Amino acid sequence: MRYDIAIIGSGAAGLSAAVNAKIRNKNFILFGNDELSSKLVKAPSVDNYLGFYDISGEELKDRFKKHIESMDISIDNKKINSVYSMGDYFALMSGQEMFEATTVIVATGVEFSKPISGEEEFLGKGVGYCATCDGMLYKDKSVAVIGYNKEALSDANYLSELTSKTYFVPMFPEVGMMRSSLDLNSDIEIIKDKPTKITGENLVDHLHFKNHDELAVDGVFVIKDSTTPAALVPGLDTKDRHVMVDAMMRTNIPGCFAAGDCVGKPYSYIKSAGQGQIAALSAVEYLDSMKR
Amino acid sequence: MRYDIAIIGSGAAGLSAAVNAKIRNKNFILFGNDELSSKLVKAPSVDNYLGFYDISGEELKDRFKKHIESMDISIDNKKINSVYSMGDYFALMSGQEMFEATTVIVATGVEFSKPISGEEEFLGKGVGYCATCDGMLYKDKSVAVIGYNKEALSDANYLSELTSKTYFVPMFPEVGMMRSSLDLNSDIEIIKDKPTKITGENLVDHLHFKNHDELAVDGVFVIKDSTTPAALVPGLDTKDRHVMVDAMMRTNIPGCFAAGDCVGKPYSYIKSAGQGQIAALSAVEYLDSMKR
Repeated sequence: MRYDIAIIGSGAAGLSAAVNAKIRNKNFILFGNDELSSKLVKAPSVDNYLGFYDISGEELKDRFKKHIESMDISIDNKKINSVYSMGDYFALMSGQEMFEATTVIVATGVEFSKPISGEEEFLGKGVGYCATCDGMLYKDKSVAVIGYNKEALSDANYLSELTSKTYFVPMFPEVGMMRSSLDLNSDIEIIKDKPTKITGENLVDHLHFKNHDELAVDGVFVIKDSTTPAALVPGLDTKDRHVMVDAMMRTNIPGCFAAGDCVGKPYSYIKSAGQGQIAALSAVEYLDSMKR
Repeated sequence: MRYDIAIIGSGAAGLSAAVNAKIRNKNFILFGNDELSSKLVKAPSVDNYLGFYDISGEELKDRFKKHIESMDISIDNKKINSVYSMGDYFALMSGQEMFEATTVIVATGVEFSKPISGEEEFLGKGVGYCATCDGMLYKDKSVAVIGYNKEALSDANYLSELTSKTYFVPMFPEVGMMRSSLDLNSDIEIIKDKPTKITGENLVDHLHFKNHDELAVDGVFVIKDSTTPAALVPGLDTKDRHVMVDAMMRTNIPGCFAAGDCVGKPYSYIKSAGQGQIAALSAVEYLDSMKR
């Protein structure tokens, strides 16, 4: 089955896109997570979302949740690792699973953590963002997992069963607290230091640290909540890590739209919601134009 | 006194701009009316404003009103007729009164009524949008007032005291009902017909109708809620009656920004609110850049 619209991201932009896709009676799928947006939940008070004054991020999240639930919109918790343009449709990969959609709306937010030196250079040459996608490439080799979230733990465990050696580099802000509770296989070596550089000739061969000795590794997995749009959708035009869009939220790839923080500042909910709507209506217009 | 920001329009775009200008501690003035937006109030049910499901336009208006009241934002009920770029500031004319502001945000919505043939051609050459501004030009001459709102009645009365002859052409949708209640001076002649064309050589000399004989007039005043942005701000780039803006809501005139329905479709509240925010933040950035 092929969806009309696949929406990637469950922040204000993705939700607003979903609401409008639903109103326009399109067959769509919304990828994200039930917490909607980790950034939203952390906001202590939001004053600039017209209609709500002095509302907490948590309350606003509840309002958003209630809105989509009232419209029978559900969130698919799968993480999309790659989106490939196939001409008249898109293939969205979630691990080994594939989804098809005629249009895609990228609403993945911004990843505030800066890439590590070499991360972008070696992407696809030893650096990966998805253990279930690329893990088999490292069978009986050595890898390091730089983990920003809990998903990274299970990714590291999966890799440790394939590889000869798996290192885990925890990047949680609360790493001191969580150290003892890291649910990792016993053969995984934990490196508690800041990674500074990924180096190699054509392929990755070392991961460097601020204090710790460098590690000889064949692969480095960086596991964070959002990959950069350029890494997610090969061929997508970006500038300063933001997706380039026109006023109708069209990207350089026909059928691919983007909205919210990932297209640039201001990083805010009302702006994202407005753009999510525009992206959905532009996708609807694109779908209509294909029928003609 | 010179304002940092003058916001013209009290729909979702103007209100959102005001909320953000307030948060950023700018000295601003918001022109509009206490009903906020006549279009908003008329909406029976709004489903696409993320956070509110199945809310009436009236309720949404109340939420917007509560939001701005909570932030001590008030609306100035004056109507702005013209905005002139004076180099490093703008002069905003409301009748004979002038306001100064370093930046302007145009959030005037869209005027759905089409211009009458000749209206744009003869603008400033016999066609006007503001009786109190231009009335004196027609002393002892004859004028027609094409009136879309109640303000047009008092404009016609004012003109009838100056001119040798004033005609009034009511364009209210409920004209049949209102005819008897038109509070007009007795020397004003009411023409109940659809105006079709304004003609003349260099200056206006006739107003034509669907059925009624043409009238010989020196001036035609078209009084409606919003003038087109091009008529409001001389020199503003527009296309298909929409203000041309970039993604940061900048117009072709430095310091002048636009947001909401007046910049184009989709005509919707959440999109307008998002753009109003962007316009305000762009104005703030512009103000900061002037200080450097």
